[in-house]
Amino acid sequence: MKSLLDKTSNMSVFEELESEVRSYCRSFPIVFTQANNYMLRDTDGKEYIDFFAGAGALNYGHNNPKLKRKLVDYIMNDGITHSLDMATSAKAEFLKRFNEVILKPRGLNYKVMFPGPTGTNSVESALKLARKVKGRETIMSFTNAFHGMTLGSLAITGNRFKRHGAGVPLYHSVFVPFDKYYGDKVDTIEHVERVLDDGGSGVSLPAAMILETVQGEGGINVADYEWLRKLSYICKRRGIILIVDDIQAGCGRTGTFFSFEKAGIEPDIVCLSKSISGYGLPMAITLLKPELDIWEPGEHNGTFRGNNMAFITAAEALSYWENDELCRHVERHGETVRLFLEDLIKTYPNMKGEVRGRGLMQGIAFGIEGLATKVCKTAFEQGLIMETAGVNREVAKVMPPLTIDREGLEHGLNILAYSVKAWSKDFN
Amino acid sequence: MKSLLDKTSNMSVFEELESEVRSYCRSFPIVFTQANNYMLRDTDGKEYIDFFAGAGALNYGHNNPKLKRKLVDYIMNDGITHSLDMATSAKAEFLKRFNEVILKPRGLNYKVMFPGPTGTNSVESALKLARKVKGRETIMSFTNAFHGMTLGSLAITGNRFKRHGAGVPLYHSVFVPFDKYYGDKVDTIEHVERVLDDGGSGVSLPAAMILETVQGEGGINVADYEWLRKLSYICKRRGIILIVDDIQAGCGRTGTFFSFEKAGIEPDIVCLSKSISGYGLPMAITLLKPELDIWEPGEHNGTFRGNNMAFITAAEALSYWENDELCRHVERHGETVRLFLEDLIKTYPNMKGEVRGRGLMQGIAFGIEGLATKVCKTAFEQGLIMETAGVNREVAKVMPPLTIDREGLEHGLNILAYSVKAWSKDFN
Amino acid sequence: MKSLLDKTSNMSVFEELESEVRSYCRSFPIVFTQANNYMLRDTDGKEYIDFFAGAGALNYGHNNPKLKRKLVDYIMNDGITHSLDMATSAKAEFLKRFNEVILKPRGLNYKVMFPGPTGTNSVESALKLARKVKGRETIMSFTNAFHGMTLGSLAITGNRFKRHGAGVPLYHSVFVPFDKYYGDKVDTIEHVERVLDDGGSGVSLPAAMILETVQGEGGINVADYEWLRKLSYICKRRGIILIVDDIQAGCGRTGTFFSFEKAGIEPDIVCLSKSISGYGLPMAITLLKPELDIWEPGEHNGTFRGNNMAFITAAEALSYWENDELCRHVERHGETVRLFLEDLIKTYPNMKGEVRGRGLMQGIAFGIEGLATKVCKTAFEQGLIMETAGVNREVAKVMPPLTIDREGLEHGLNILAYSVKAWSKDFN
Amino acid sequence: MKSLLDKTSNMSVFEELESEVRSYCRSFPIVFTQANNYMLRDTDGKEYIDFFAGAGALNYGHNNPKLKRKLVDYIMNDGITHSLDMATSAKAEFLKRFNEVILKPRGLNYKVMFPGPTGTNSVESALKLARKVKGRETIMSFTNAFHGMTLGSLAITGNRFKRHGAGVPLYHSVFVPFDKYYGDKVDTIEHVERVLDDGGSGVSLPAAMILETVQGEGGINVADYEWLRKLSYICKRRGIILIVDDIQAGCGRTGTFFSFEKAGIEPDIVCLSKSISGYGLPMAITLLKPELDIWEPGEHNGTFRGNNMAFITAAEALSYWENDELCRHVERHGETVRLFLEDLIKTYPNMKGEVRGRGLMQGIAFGIEGLATKVCKTAFEQGLIMETAGVNREVAKVMPPLTIDREGLEHGLNILAYSVKAWSKDFN
Repeated sequence: MKSLLDKTSNMSVFEELESEVRSYCRSFPIVFTQANNYMLRDTDGKEYIDFFAGAGALNYGHNNPKLKRKLVDYIMNDGITHSLDMATSAKAEFLKRFNEVILKPRGLNYKVMFPGPTGTNSVESALKLARKVKGRETIMSFTNAFHGMTLGSLAITGNRFKRHGAGVPLYHSVFVPFDKYYGDKVDTIEHVERVLDDGGSGVSLPAAMILETVQGEGGINVADYEWLRKLSYICKRRGIILIVDDIQAGCGRTGTFFSFEKAGIEPDIVCLSKSISGYGLPMAITLLKPELDIWEPGEHNGTFRGNNMAFITAAEALSYWENDELCRHVERHGETVRLFLEDLIKTYPNMKGEVRGRGLMQGIAFGIEGLATKVCKTAFEQGLIMETAGVNREVAKVMPPLTIDREGLEHGLNILAYSVKAWSKDFN
Repeated sequence: MKSLLDKTSNMSVFEELESEVRSYCRSFPIVFTQANNYMLRDTDGKEYIDFFAGAGALNYGHNNPKLKRKLVDYIMNDGITHSLDMATSAKAEFLKRFNEVILKPRGLNYKVMFPGPTGTNSVESALKLARKVKGRETIMSFTNAFHGMTLGSLAITGNRFKRHGAGVPLYHSVFVPFDKYYGDKVDTIEHVERVLDDGGSGVSLPAAMILETVQGEGGINVADYEWLRKLSYICKRRGIILIVDDIQAGCGRTGTFFSFEKAGIEPDIVCLSKSISGYGLPMAITLLKPELDIWEPGEHNGTFRGNNMAFITAAEALSYWENDELCRHVERHGETVRLFLEDLIKTYPNMKGEVRGRGLMQGIAFGIEGLATKVCKTAFEQGLIMETAGVNREVAKVMPPLTIDREGLEHGLNILAYSVKAWSKDFN
Repeated sequence: MKSLLDKTSNMSVFEELESEVRSYCRSFPIVFTQANNYMLRDTDGKEYIDFFAGAGALNYGHNNPKLKRKLVDYIMNDGITHSLDMATSAKAEFLKRFNEVILKPRGLNYKVMFPGPTGTNSVESALKLARKVKGRETIMSFTNAFHGMTLGSLAITGNRFKRHGAGVPLYHSVFVPFDKYYGDKVDTIEHVERVLDDGGSGVSLPAAMILETVQGEGGINVADYEWLRKLSYICKRRGIILIVDDIQAGCGRTGTFFSFEKAGIEPDIVCLSKSISGYGLPMAITLLKPELDIWEPGEHNGTFRGNNMAFITAAEALSYWENDELCRHVERHGETVRLFLEDLIKTYPNMKGEVRGRGLMQGIAFGIEGLATKVCKTAFEQGLIMETAGVNREVAKVMPPLTIDREGLEHGLNILAYSVKAWSKDFN
Repeated sequence: MKSLLDKTSNMSVFEELESEVRSYCRSFPIVFTQANNYMLRDTDGKEYIDFFAGAGALNYGHNNPKLKRKLVDYIMNDGITHSLDMATSAKAEFLKRFNEVILKPRGLNYKVMFPGPTGTNSVESALKLARKVKGRETIMSFTNAFHGMTLGSLAITGNRFKRHGAGVPLYHSVFVPFDKYYGDKVDTIEHVERVLDDGGSGVSLPAAMILETVQGEGGINVADYEWLRKLSYICKRRGIILIVDDIQAGCGRTGTFFSFEKAGIEPDIVCLSKSISGYGLPMAITLLKPELDIWEPGEHNGTFRGNNMAFITAAEALSYWENDELCRHVERHGETVRLFLEDLIKTYPNMKGEVRGRGLMQGIAFGIEGLATKVCKTAFEQGLIMETAGVNREVAKVMPPLTIDREGLEHGLNILAYSVKAWSKDFN
């Protein structure tokens, strides 16, 4: 590893050779080399606490040792690496484990589809199927939704900057207000119903609704369980397919494997990616109610559907769900974060902070423009990696690996508190 | 590995739990467990010669030992696995190697963009950028093109069945005839020019043209170098961006690293995926002429852009391009395949075979409906894995790993000959 | 005329030869032959009071004698009938009169465009120009809007049944709630502003907003003047073009020539058709703020732009606007109608009527499904022609020629009262 | 009339008050006041021969006296002027006459639909219905087609300048080469078939094909009858609706009432407008095979569908079709024009003229840029009104009223010859 370190000790190689589209390396202008659970190490050996967790792709921590062992064994044994959608023992094992550990205990009955190994690809497959099943084009999506960057997913993503990047108009989507979009007092479910039922609303009956139960990129906006239940009922009554994009909020991030479990709803389609492989390896699955599975063979495909290394780690990661230890761990730590953040915003009322989130997907929305970015920058200088979220980057996001220990969590929170304090004097 | 084998010795798990969209596992109804260079092994230990090579994702063979060594070292050393687009030493190393081994020696000057790790994502990023640079929506694409399954890429894909799967109309694309689409005597370049220059053609000036120099999925259709040069000139003169989708034909498949090298053209944008990681790991890059690199940071992104294991194997795979050994190997083997196939179709004229292709991307187009599928089925039963291509699956595709040795190649070709012969009697 | 009458005394010719798309002749299954001001006469000589007025195309009554005289003189003198957009003396005269009688006294400065002679064509021209000026695609439109049946206008029309008729998805439009869409207590202006200003709303900045100040087809929904002022201000501040579709509500229907005069706003573009010719002849104009007039010659055209007979009657009809007599007449009669209808709904509270409208564009929205249709049917049998409006045909529309006299108005209203009463017993 | 003349003796009123979009008044910068058959008169009493005929809207001449008499009688008798789609005696009379004089004798069986009274509205209605019947979106259209300026019609119009004016991308259309688009030697029917039948062409099965048998605006391009027959057969075999846009070429312009009669085909839908009223009054009809007439009542509508004055003149105009006098007249005169033009281009070979057209829809395409415009300008100065056609305005169009007499025709042709000669010296 040493030789690598020497050669890449600065950022110039990226500036010279990589496209201007690169972004996180601008916020964290350092070259990383190694990682372990919630720690990242740079080329100088400096360590950073990770409250970012690969934007939700590293729920089980960096290079989780249990998963690593399985992975290396598989590689060393010349297990299949790449298989398109041929049958492999690794894939069979994942399918069986997923069914036994996740679906069955929750009383869920889904067929598993393997789209290309990215979140956006899972979303695109879900939209295609919903449209095929219903024979209708429109997808209803929510303000501040984020579903991906390929053209189908981008059309249902609310962010104006990202939409503009399409270079073409985006179609077949219509946006309705997410829970609490007009504040606590307006029940946006009524708006959704009105738009659906009024023959003069300009909106045709959608094939599907898609939503994140907690909007990650959109600013850690949480949908109440009651609101989700009403939405689910709205869909059922009108023959609208309900898709939950659980790419960021799923895989335990909010405290249960699926983010919608406590709402008691059963979406027709669920999109999973990010932490499904458990090890940060590209993988995505789309879960379909069996009666929707009217795909023709090969109607949606992709070269890297069969990333078998990911299947190996994904199957192993499911062992975290054989009991409720992780759930309780997330709940406990989530509570710790909640209390800490609430306290923090009360200490610095002039920073107009608002705590948002659920489980280990939380954040502070600052009412002052640019403040979240400043806080995260200071945190980084102090050894903590956090990203911002929200259309105006107004939210500082707390999203450590679920496997973080108390010590790591507290250390990170203390750096955050320090960083907030550092900027607080500017707003007094 | 043993326990895995026992548990997955049949296909029922896929039938029960996986979506109907699965396809290759229907052609090859066997569970694979291990692989090595051009050999695949099933749960019963039976071996298969691989003339499929992950649809071009395994140019350096399954589990290439040189790459494997680097990969395992990296994992064991807790190298960064997942980094979004943060700077890592693995990524720096890949960028430098790619520049030094591939770009510089060919006099090419490209910035490297890392989209999500799939071919379709690279194509989507190329289209977005072309549209942004030119401020125009239309992309000109070619008959029988295949560029991917997400909505942007699907719009420029010719296959009617796959397009129909979109569930929505597809936009902003216009199709013109590929080289020899109307037979050898019609120069389709004239059609392209007419459509572009006639103000009454109904077609607006496109932002870009995109093409594969050898169409893989479309039926192993080869564009002559002269035709490519004319097309490149057409684009230059009219300010149209030329995109080469080298996802399947690139990374040495046709005998040079880029498939367009011998044509002497320099596309404005190049899409690479499939074999770029060298090990079958999900990865994609988009190469951009520096003057086109007007992306805003984060304007196109994706969670798995930073699949560092793939960067490690990709950097190592480039060592194959430090001399011309592999090139000559591909040329030699390609010639062997060409002669063998030509001979084969002459032996069985009633099967109306036509040999197509370039390098180790070849095939026989059969003039009899359903024949290619039958031949591939028989080949599979004899221990050879081959897929069909073309809109009517009329082509039996010969696409072994580039690293196949003479023995393996001849063995595979003999099985193919056997399979052709087996069906020949039906057509006499 | 006699021979015509004999031959067409029944409806069978329409049933046999005309398309199923015909509609009004189903509500009024009688063959009409002659008309005069507010009276229509059928082939048996039976007379009907007209509270329909060509859906607003006959504000000056059927066959207005002053206009008729000018028209016949023009025809007899071999005046130009059809001129495309060549210069004719009839067109010159209209332009000058319109400028002097309508624009100048109101301090308005518009260029006049002559699109094809239908309302939808005026709307299409307005949308094209707005998009050209702003270089943006989206048009913001309102719930229950009706703007026409060609594809561009239909895309901004709210009615689901009519939209569905397009046979293709409709694009580049987004719907926001009209005044009082969510009831009296919700200020929909706030929704419009939120959608425009929130970068996560999924809606891009529109090129234009288009609205009717009183929605005719949509159910006689009235926008308050204050709401219109706020909307106008919203557009100004954000560089959005404001288009008023005054096709039905304009030409004096609400009491002023333009329906927006009392709001004190100056739209950037105004669409006029229906009563602009004054005689029921096809004609349409689009009024443009001079700074928006960046059309290339012929960029929007049409064969019947130059319907000179319509120019002749249109110029003469403007004499009604040289003083305020007609205005006061409409106001007085409008007040009569308002009081009569208010009284009527109070008399029959079980019919859940609600009076809507402004000037001589009024109606009763019934809270009972199908009731408006029944009332209009009975009215027709009693010699009164009224149509329904609203997405569920829930409104019985009172829209006589502006030139109706007190006697005719009262006679019609009495028939309406009779018809309401006739159905009232069913709802007690 | 005198007072009008005085007031409008110059063009300034148009420059000041009318939009920049005006176009013909720029080519013919004079104010016209009166017209009679093929003569137009300006405000100074100067007369012009009309080889333009309202772009085909005045086939029976300006102010045809037989039609005028009926029209004035109708107006004086207070006949219904405006009726939306209510039943009127004028409409009944037209329907019966059209059936008896046009449809029955030709063995045609069509239902008649009255869209808004413009050609583009007829086309929009045809597209809607075709899409509804087939449940498919795509319309196949031809290079250099012109079908109208509203968004649906514009999408199937080939002209790039006009398409660009849409301000939005245009959808659901695909263009294939018109007859002889690639020269006399290429049978474009084969291209059409290939695109339809090749599952990799990128084109989905269209709901309909639409074409003009002689393209007017597109440059007087004539489709051979044999080509039309093949096309009709292609449509029949594949379940594609065939729409003939006979707006310009119909109503006798090419020598038969419908332009497709001699081809022996029966389109599924026919669009008529321009000369259908016979007097230059706005009117349009869409003819539908009865089995296609699945419209819901009111699914396509429009305020000016019921332009009864047009029905009166339209019914009377049909008397021209009760015998074959007009047909033979057009044929004779067409032959005269053909010979004259052929002679003319032979006399001035350097002007690279090519005679095109059929019946009284002919023209000279000049191979020299800008020449047709110059010739028409000189002709206008000499008292002859002609327009240019073609995407580059390369064709000088000869299109007098069908009712022109020999004297008028020869006078006009002589002016044309003079104008050609005047410019011929520049190209020697």
